[in-house]
Amino acid sequence: MSRKKTQSPLLIERILTGDKIAVSKAMSLIENDDPEAHSILDSIYDKTGKALRLGITGPPGVGKSTLLCELTLCIRKENEPVGIIAVDPSSYITGGALLGDRIRMQKIATDDGTFIRSMATRGNLGGLARTTFEIADLLDASGKKYILIETVGVGQSEVDIVNTCDITAVVLSPESGDSIQAMKSGLMEAADIVIINKKDRPGAEKLENELRSTFELRTGTSVRVPILKTNALLSEGIPAVLSEVKGIFSDMRKNGSLARRRRNNLKTKLCSLLQYNFLKAIKLSQKADRQMECLAEDVLCGKNTPYSDLDSLMVKFL
Amino acid sequence: MSRKKTQSPLLIERILTGDKIAVSKAMSLIENDDPEAHSILDSIYDKTGKALRLGITGPPGVGKSTLLCELTLCIRKENEPVGIIAVDPSSYITGGALLGDRIRMQKIATDDGTFIRSMATRGNLGGLARTTFEIADLLDASGKKYILIETVGVGQSEVDIVNTCDITAVVLSPESGDSIQAMKSGLMEAADIVIINKKDRPGAEKLENELRSTFELRTGTSVRVPILKTNALLSEGIPAVLSEVKGIFSDMRKNGSLARRRRNNLKTKLCSLLQYNFLKAIKLSQKADRQMECLAEDVLCGKNTPYSDLDSLMVKFL
Repeated sequence: MSRKKTQSPLLIERILTGDKIAVSKAMSLIENDDPEAHSILDSIYDKTGKALRLGITGPPGVGKSTLLCELTLCIRKENEPVGIIAVDPSSYITGGALLGDRIRMQKIATDDGTFIRSMATRGNLGGLARTTFEIADLLDASGKKYILIETVGVGQSEVDIVNTCDITAVVLSPESGDSIQAMKSGLMEAADIVIINKKDRPGAEKLENELRSTFELRTGTSVRVPILKTNALLSEGIPAVLSEVKGIFSDMRKNGSLARRRRNNLKTKLCSLLQYNFLKAIKLSQKADRQMECLAEDVLCGKNTPYSDLDSLMVKFL
Repeated sequence: MSRKKTQSPLLIERILTGDKIAVSKAMSLIENDDPEAHSILDSIYDKTGKALRLGITGPPGVGKSTLLCELTLCIRKENEPVGIIAVDPSSYITGGALLGDRIRMQKIATDDGTFIRSMATRGNLGGLARTTFEIADLLDASGKKYILIETVGVGQSEVDIVNTCDITAVVLSPESGDSIQAMKSGLMEAADIVIINKKDRPGAEKLENELRSTFELRTGTSVRVPILKTNALLSEGIPAVLSEVKGIFSDMRKNGSLARRRRNNLKTKLCSLLQYNFLKAIKLSQKADRQMECLAEDVLCGKNTPYSDLDSLMVKFL
């Protein structure tokens, strides 16, 4: 195996033992796109693959953060270490307006077996998906048994992120009417499990029935998508979710679908890395920047349009 | 000027006269990434640049859609045609749960001078930003004087989209506590105008004062960021917003900053188009797909890691 030499063998050693400070440091290197980040990731890559990566997505306001907190507490009762990546930047900081959530988060944040990273970064060269799965790899290598990745199921990059997980949980709430939107948007097609949170609110049964008939109508799906009901604020239904997720994971491992999915996810990741590298090349190299200036100039003086001939533009860059 | 021949000179003619059906058809071609779309965009490109492109962004629930509707009605009173691109898929479909919004939307939807496109597409090869500005170019060429682009200020791609507008309006509400998050996230740095909606709620004054002191603390900004207060549900404060936006636009035109910003936006667009083209090449070509399979295989059998050597991976692809 070809490994580049890293400057920090000690840092790597500490990451692999789950040292919080070392993991934090490596995360900052990843987020800052420090050249050392890739050499660290390269070195620890063969220690990844042990964690269950669960994507938790859904429309804003359905209670994803609360559910994620409760799920974490539930996993921690079994003494398994958990890594949390919150890609929705609004959830922890403004969502923290709910006192209950704050208390929950504090309980988690001070726990040594849990690592929380809130991804508030943006505008970083379209690299949010990249950063997220790199951080997931880091948490995985650091010994976390569960990696929970929360995204609001609205933006495209957020959905892309969830699609790099082993299992995707879509969270809905009865009142929101978001189920229709979720189905239209393709979010439901990615769902391995659906959680109806706020189950005490009117319409929970109706939503469940709607979802069941939709899933039944799907042609060509032999896989049953479980629908579970929770009330995360009251900690109701959480152990059932965890047990279902574990069951799905274990089935996927046995029937080979986990390996297939991870292979596909790997291709997605490689694409994402290549794309990021390409974008970095066209945005950050001085030569490319000059060429971009020339292209822009051609458009501004009417010699060309941005739509003229993308293929020949590409050739100019490569 | 080199123009590729398009199959639909009639379609182009109809687009340029603002024919709704022709514009819709072209939008579908763009969204489906039909090869004809680029030849149409190429042909109409020299008719673009006349519209004022206003990006409207902010956290979920602050009332962006309502504000956008009211602003549209306000512009329509002056008889100017308006194009609306709603990138936040949840806003029009589920946000329509508010009866008031539905009535507003209907009023707009049946108006011949207004064109509304809701971008519910996702997962389309990272092309949401691309599709949005292509549709904005189309609306611009079709004679719309204002193009309003609404995105929820959460996802990265959404923020990228707003950054291709002439003017960015950030909408906040007093109660949400989102202002801190908005400032942290870099959303405020993009703001040309801040709108505090739901101004009758407690905390509006406080939020305004906080924002003013934050803006004053910014080093190196000679530009004053106006802060306006509205109550979109009661149609209060909307004409002032429109007048402020017009004033900013007119100032930007006079002092040359509009040309500078559009030049920068153009570079962003070109990058986005190139990136999209690159991604399409690595995702859709059979040869690239086989190569990606080989790369994935090398990683799976431990010969390589995804982080080994991106530059040499790049070379393999190009």
